Amino acid sequence: MSDGRHLILDLYDCDAEILDDYNQLQELLETALRMSSATILRIIGEKFEPQGVTLLALLAESHASIHTWPEIGYAAIDLYTCGDTTNTHKAAEFLKTKLKAKTAEERELRRSVTPST
Amino acid sequence: MSDGRHLILDLYDCDAEILDDYNQLQELLETALRMSSATILRIIGEKFEPQGVTLLALLAESHASIHTWPEIGYAAIDLYTCGDTTNTHKAAEFLKTKLKAKTAEERELRRSVTPST
Repeated sequence: MSDGRHLILDLYDCDAEILDDYNQLQELLETALRMSSATILRIIGEKFEPQGVTLLALLAESHASIHTWPEIGYAAIDLYTCGDTTNTHKAAEFLKTKLKAKTAEERELRRSVTPST
Repeated sequence: MSDGRHLILDLYDCDAEILDDYNQLQELLETALRMSSATILRIIGEKFEPQGVTLLALLAESHASIHTWPEIGYAAIDLYTCGDTTNTHKAAEFLKTKLKAKTAEERELRRSVTPST
Protein backbone atom coordinates (compact mmCIF):
# COMPACT_ATOMS: atom_id res chain seq x y z
CA MET A 1 0.00 0.00 0.00
CA SER A 2 1.53 3.27 -1.09
CA ASP A 3 1.60 6.58 0.75
CA GLY A 4 -0.84 9.37 0.00
CA ARG A 5 0.13 12.49 -1.87
CA HIS A 6 -1.54 15.73 -0.87
CA LEU A 7 -1.12 18.71 -3.14
CA ILE A 8 -1.93 22.04 -1.45
CA LEU A 9 -2.37 24.82 -3.92
CA ASP A 10 -2.92 28.48 -3.11
CA LEU A 11 -3.74 30.60 -6.17
CA TYR A 12 -3.58 34.40 -6.15
CA ASP A 13 -4.80 37.15 -8.47
CA CYS A 14 -7.22 34.82 -10.20
CA ASP A 15 -10.15 35.88 -12.37
CA ALA A 16 -12.80 37.05 -9.91
CA GLU A 17 -15.74 36.20 -12.17
CA ILE A 18 -14.65 32.60 -12.59
CA LEU A 19 -14.04 32.29 -8.83
CA ASP A 20 -17.65 33.25 -8.20
CA ASP A 21 -19.17 31.01 -10.91
CA TYR A 22 -20.30 27.79 -9.22
CA ASN A 23 -21.15 25.88 -12.39
CA GLN A 24 -17.97 26.80 -14.21
CA LEU A 25 -15.84 25.88 -11.19
CA GLN A 26 -17.56 22.52 -10.92
CA GLU A 27 -16.93 21.81 -14.61
CA LEU A 28 -13.29 22.82 -14.27
CA LEU A 29 -12.82 20.64 -11.20
CA GLU A 30 -14.42 17.66 -12.89
CA THR A 31 -12.28 18.10 -15.98
CA ALA A 32 -9.13 18.54 -13.89
CA LEU A 33 -9.83 15.39 -11.91
CA ARG A 34 -10.56 13.37 -15.04
CA MET A 35 -7.25 14.58 -16.53
CA SER A 36 -5.58 13.25 -13.39
CA SER A 37 -7.27 9.85 -13.75
CA ALA A 38 -9.09 10.31 -10.44
CA THR A 39 -12.47 8.62 -9.92
CA ILE A 40 -15.16 11.09 -8.81
CA LEU A 41 -17.82 9.44 -6.64
CA ARG A 42 -19.69 12.60 -5.67
CA ILE A 43 -19.32 16.39 -5.64
CA ILE A 44 -21.08 18.79 -3.31
CA GLY A 45 -20.74 22.51 -3.00
CA GLU A 46 -22.00 25.77 -1.67
CA LYS A 47 -22.35 29.20 -3.19
CA PHE A 48 -21.78 31.75 -0.47
CA GLU A 49 -23.35 35.21 -0.28
CA PRO A 50 -22.33 37.82 -1.21
CA GLN A 51 -19.58 35.83 -2.93
CA GLY A 52 -17.40 32.75 -2.85
CA VAL A 53 -17.76 29.08 -3.67
CA THR A 54 -16.79 25.81 -2.00
CA LEU A 55 -16.66 22.50 -3.86
CA LEU A 56 -15.78 19.14 -2.30
CA ALA A 57 -15.18 16.08 -4.45
CA LEU A 58 -15.31 12.66 -2.86
CA LEU A 59 -12.89 10.48 -4.83
CA ALA A 60 -12.26 6.76 -4.83
CA GLU A 61 -8.66 7.86 -4.16
CA SER A 62 -9.48 10.38 -1.30
CA HIS A 63 -10.71 13.92 -2.00
CA ALA A 64 -10.32 17.25 -3.73
CA SER A 65 -11.58 20.68 -2.73
CA ILE A 66 -11.77 24.25 -3.96
CA HIS A 67 -12.59 27.29 -1.82
CA THR A 68 -12.72 30.71 -3.47
CA TRP A 69 -12.68 34.32 -2.31
CA PRO A 70 -13.46 36.29 -5.47
CA GLU A 71 -13.16 39.62 -3.66
CA ILE A 72 -9.40 39.12 -3.29
CA GLY A 73 -8.84 36.78 -6.26
CA TYR A 74 -7.80 33.89 -4.01
CA ALA A 75 -8.49 30.17 -4.39
CA ALA A 76 -7.41 27.42 -1.96
CA ILE A 77 -7.26 24.01 -3.61
CA ASP A 78 -6.51 20.54 -2.21
CA LEU A 79 -5.83 17.47 -4.30
CA TYR A 80 -5.29 14.48 -2.05
CA THR A 81 -4.96 11.02 -3.58
CA CYS A 82 -3.85 7.59 -2.49
CA GLY A 83 -2.53 4.92 -4.78
CA ASP A 84 -0.37 5.15 -7.90
CA THR A 85 -3.00 5.66 -10.57
CA THR A 86 -3.52 9.41 -10.37
CA ASN A 87 -1.43 12.41 -11.39
CA THR A 88 -2.79 15.47 -9.65
CA HIS A 89 -0.04 17.72 -10.98
CA LYS A 90 -1.97 17.74 -14.24
CA ALA A 91 -5.07 18.93 -12.39
CA ALA A 92 -3.04 21.62 -10.61
CA GLU A 93 -1.58 22.98 -13.85
CA PHE A 94 -4.97 22.94 -15.53
CA LEU A 95 -6.68 24.80 -12.65
CA LYS A 96 -3.89 27.38 -12.38
CA THR A 97 -4.36 28.18 -16.07
CA LYS A 98 -8.14 28.14 -16.13
CA LEU A 99 -8.53 30.30 -13.01
CA LYS A 100 -5.97 32.68 -14.58
CA ALA A 101 -3.82 32.72 -11.44
CA LYS A 102 -0.96 35.22 -11.66
CA THR A 103 0.80 33.72 -8.65
CA ALA A 104 0.69 30.18 -7.27
CA GLU A 105 2.08 28.51 -4.18
CA GLU A 106 2.23 24.76 -4.26
CA ARG A 107 3.15 22.37 -1.48
CA GLU A 108 3.17 18.61 -1.81
CA LEU A 109 2.85 16.60 1.38
CA ARG A 110 3.54 12.94 1.60
CA ARG A 111 1.08 11.27 3.95
CA SER A 112 2.66 8.10 5.14
CA VAL A 113 0.33 5.19 5.86
CA THR A 114 2.75 4.03 8.57
CA PRO A 115 4.31 6.14 11.34
CA SER A 116 7.75 7.58 10.64
CA THR A 117 9.07 6.71 14.10
CA MET B 1 -9.30 38.89 6.38
CA SER B 2 -7.22 36.35 8.25
CA ASP B 3 -5.20 33.46 6.85
CA GLY B 4 -6.48 29.90 6.81
CA ARG B 5 -5.23 27.24 9.16
CA HIS B 6 -5.02 23.71 7.84
CA LEU B 7 -4.42 20.93 10.32
CA ILE B 8 -3.19 17.71 8.72
CA LEU B 9 -3.48 14.78 11.04
CA ASP B 10 -2.23 11.25 10.38
CA LEU B 11 -3.30 8.76 13.03
CA TYR B 12 -1.73 5.31 13.39
CA ASP B 13 -2.61 2.12 15.25
CA CYS B 14 -6.20 3.22 15.72
CA ASP B 15 -9.10 0.97 16.66
CA ALA B 16 -9.95 -0.93 13.46
CA GLU B 17 -13.62 -1.42 14.31
CA ILE B 18 -14.22 2.27 14.85
CA LEU B 19 -12.37 3.09 11.63
CA ASP B 20 -14.80 0.90 9.70
CA ASP B 21 -17.97 2.17 11.42
CA TYR B 22 -19.48 4.85 9.19
CA ASN B 23 -22.14 6.04 11.62
CA GLN B 24 -19.83 6.23 14.59
CA LEU B 25 -17.22 8.13 12.58
CA GLN B 26 -19.82 10.60 11.40
CA GLU B 27 -21.00 11.21 14.96
CA LEU B 28 -17.42 11.68 16.15
CA LEU B 29 -16.65 14.11 13.34
CA GLU B 30 -19.79 16.13 14.03
CA THR B 31 -19.02 16.27 17.74
CA ALA B 32 -15.39 17.23 17.08
CA LEU B 33 -16.41 20.03 14.74
CA ARG B 34 -19.00 21.37 17.15
CA MET B 35 -16.34 21.37 19.89
CA SER B 36 -14.20 23.48 17.58
CA SER B 37 -17.06 25.95 16.98
CA ALA B 38 -17.14 25.11 13.28
CA THR B 39 -20.40 25.43 11.35
CA ILE B 40 -21.29 22.25 9.49
CA LEU B 41 -23.32 22.94 6.34
CA ARG B 42 -23.33 19.38 4.97
CA ILE B 43 -21.57 16.04 5.39
CA ILE B 44 -21.24 13.34 2.75
CA GLY B 45 -19.43 10.05 2.90
CA GLU B 46 -18.76 6.67 1.42
CA LYS B 47 -18.34 3.23 2.96
CA PHE B 48 -15.83 1.31 0.89
CA GLU B 49 -15.77 -2.45 0.39
CA PRO B 50 -14.31 -4.52 1.85
CA GLN B 51 -13.40 -1.79 4.33
CA GLY B 52 -12.70 1.88 4.85
CA VAL B 53 -14.72 5.06 5.19
CA THR B 54 -14.48 8.58 3.76
CA LEU B 55 -16.33 11.54 5.27
CA LEU B 56 -16.27 15.09 3.93
CA ALA B 57 -17.75 17.97 5.88
CA LEU B 58 -18.53 21.20 4.11
CA LEU B 59 -18.09 23.97 6.66
CA ALA B 60 -18.97 27.64 6.62
CA GLU B 61 -15.27 28.04 7.48
CA SER B 62 -13.89 25.65 4.74
CA HIS B 63 -13.85 21.85 5.17
CA ALA B 64 -12.94 18.79 7.20
CA SER B 65 -12.31 15.22 6.06
CA ILE B 66 -11.60 11.75 7.39
CA HIS B 67 -10.32 8.82 5.35
CA THR B 68 -9.77 5.49 7.09
CA TRP B 69 -7.93 2.26 6.31
CA PRO B 70 -9.07 -0.11 9.08
CA GLU B 71 -6.84 -2.92 7.78
CA ILE B 72 -3.74 -1.00 8.84
CA GLY B 73 -5.29 1.11 11.62
CA TYR B 74 -4.65 4.34 9.73
CA ALA B 75 -6.77 7.49 9.53
CA ALA B 76 -5.97 10.62 7.51
CA ILE B 77 -7.77 13.71 8.79
CA ASP B 78 -7.89 17.29 7.53
CA LEU B 79 -9.29 20.21 9.47
CA TYR B 80 -9.11 23.36 7.38
CA THR B 81 -10.72 26.55 8.62
CA CYS B 82 -10.66 30.22 7.78
CA GLY B 83 -11.42 33.01 10.17
CA ASP B 84 -10.75 33.37 13.86
CA THR B 85 -13.81 31.71 15.37
CA THR B 86 -12.74 28.04 15.28
CA ASN B 87 -10.25 26.00 17.27
CA THR B 88 -9.58 22.79 15.38
CA HIS B 89 -6.92 21.66 17.86
CA LYS B 90 -9.81 20.66 20.11
CA ALA B 91 -11.25 18.52 17.29
CA ALA B 92 -7.84 16.95 16.68
CA GLU B 93 -7.35 15.99 20.31
CA PHE B 94 -10.87 14.60 20.54
CA LEU B 95 -10.49 12.48 17.38
CA LYS B 96 -7.06 11.16 18.43
CA THR B 97 -8.58 9.96 21.68
CA LYS B 98 -11.82 8.57 20.26
CA LEU B 99 -10.11 6.67 17.43
CA LYS B 100 -7.65 5.32 20.04
CA ALA B 101 -4.60 6.34 18.02
CA LYS B 102 -1.34 5.11 19.52
CA THR B 103 0.73 7.40 17.30
CA ALA B 104 -0.16 10.71 15.73
CA GLU B 105 1.58 13.03 13.31
CA GLU B 106 0.26 16.53 13.13
CA ARG B 107 1.20 19.32 10.75
CA GLU B 108 -0.33 22.75 10.73
CA LEU B 109 -0.13 24.75 7.54
CA ARG B 110 -0.83 28.40 7.28
CA ARG B 111 -2.62 29.20 4.06
CA SER B 112 -2.02 32.82 3.34
CA VAL B 113 -4.80 34.67 1.55
CA THR B 114 -2.17 36.89 -0.11
CA PRO B 115 1.02 35.77 -1.89
CA SER B 116 4.19 35.71 0.19
CA THR B 117 6.32 37.25 -2.56
